[in-house]
Amino acid sequence: MTHPYYPVDLDLPGYVGPVIPFQQVLAYFFSGCGVLFAITWVLAGRYKKLERVEKITASWFAMTGMVHFIIEGYVVLNSEFWRDSSGGVLPEIWKEYSQADSRYATRDPFVISMEAITAFVEGPACFAAVYGTLHRKPWAWTLQIMISLGQIYGDVLYYATTVLEGLIHSRPEWLYFWFYFVFVNAIWIAIPSCVIYNAATRISAAVASQQRSLTGKQS
Amino acid sequence: MTHPYYPVDLDLPGYVGPVIPFQQVLAYFFSGCGVLFAITWVLAGRYKKLERVEKITASWFAMTGMVHFIIEGYVVLNSEFWRDSSGGVLPEIWKEYSQADSRYATRDPFVISMEAITAFVEGPACFAAVYGTLHRKPWAWTLQIMISLGQIYGDVLYYATTVLEGLIHSRPEWLYFWFYFVFVNAIWIAIPSCVIYNAATRISAAVASQQRSLTGKQS
Repeated sequence: MTHPYYPVDLDLPGYVGPVIPFQQVLAYFFSGCGVLFAITWVLAGRYKKLERVEKITASWFAMTGMVHFIIEGYVVLNSEFWRDSSGGVLPEIWKEYSQADSRYATRDPFVISMEAITAFVEGPACFAAVYGTLHRKPWAWTLQIMISLGQIYGDVLYYATTVLEGLIHSRPEWLYFWFYFVFVNAIWIAIPSCVIYNAATRISAAVASQQRSLTGKQS
Repeated sequence: MTHPYYPVDLDLPGYVGPVIPFQQVLAYFFSGCGVLFAITWVLAGRYKKLERVEKITASWFAMTGMVHFIIEGYVVLNSEFWRDSSGGVLPEIWKEYSQADSRYATRDPFVISMEAITAFVEGPACFAAVYGTLHRKPWAWTLQIMISLGQIYGDVLYYATTVLEGLIHSRPEWLYFWFYFVFVNAIWIAIPSCVIYNAATRISAAVASQQRSLTGKQS
């Protein structure tokens, strides 16, 4: 079967077309994310002292950690997902998404390196961030900033590399280029920026407070 | 003239060989770094209250910021440095270094994207970190962590991409592969790791101190 990926002359022998409709793939992905966020939100409600922004932050890290570890981890470990005929949701997600970026199918060294770090370093770090945020560990804001900066940096490089290569890896249709490639990835710039803003503000307040109390003691 | 870069079949028409000896290039680079570090160290001495580790950190960010902004900025903006016959130290540095990694000469999209962010985002951020560290701004440790994580992430991707491509971009000699490619780049993993460790420890102490004082006030 001829593959749908761009550029059209990519050689992917043994490509297997979508086994389940793409609407179903999208429904699994977005409802999976929503359910994860909701579960963490409910669990976070048991930590009575937490502010709303702390509960939202914990829920975000639970969700994004699962996306990194399971979905992105899958594509790092399964280089031939585009030959999969099982109808499993993970290969189907990547067969669908590769229409927005064929570098997953062709195993672009940068994309695979970036995804490996995202899945197996940032993923587990997200779960630590959930724990640290719920329990108000003194290192929680620092870890939030480090993960978020990693997400933003990876994403900016992800955009920049494909622009330098002439945007040749995406199908031109609105759904693939604008929605999957531009919009869905932009979420991992927008939300991490908010997380960094919040965490950096909190840290600066804590450091300033400590500086005042140390100056007060000395004088 | 035939170029010395690997893989040997790279097409670089108009390549100009080294104009000044490589020992002189290395001497410029390392003594330039040393002088910059020393100048900031002396200037930091005027801030009497600073601890030694704060002065070292400020000097490190002054040095690495200049390396990012000037040396790495040069290679981002000058794609044909390997045709340069002026004998300027910047093109000579990159002609020499490209023997350790020809992706600079061939404008690899990942390497150029990563260097652009390093030069023009992390570079100026380093100068802000020098100011913030010398003046003990409450945001200084956060900024130190963000820059350092960016340096580590860029460097890990830099190693990982070339490993995935089969280490084909470096000449095999000890000087190019082990010293330039492995060792010199490893400095930007080792030192940023120390910076993160120090800054994260300080932040956690400040947050814990604030948490204790808030709990104390409430009880």
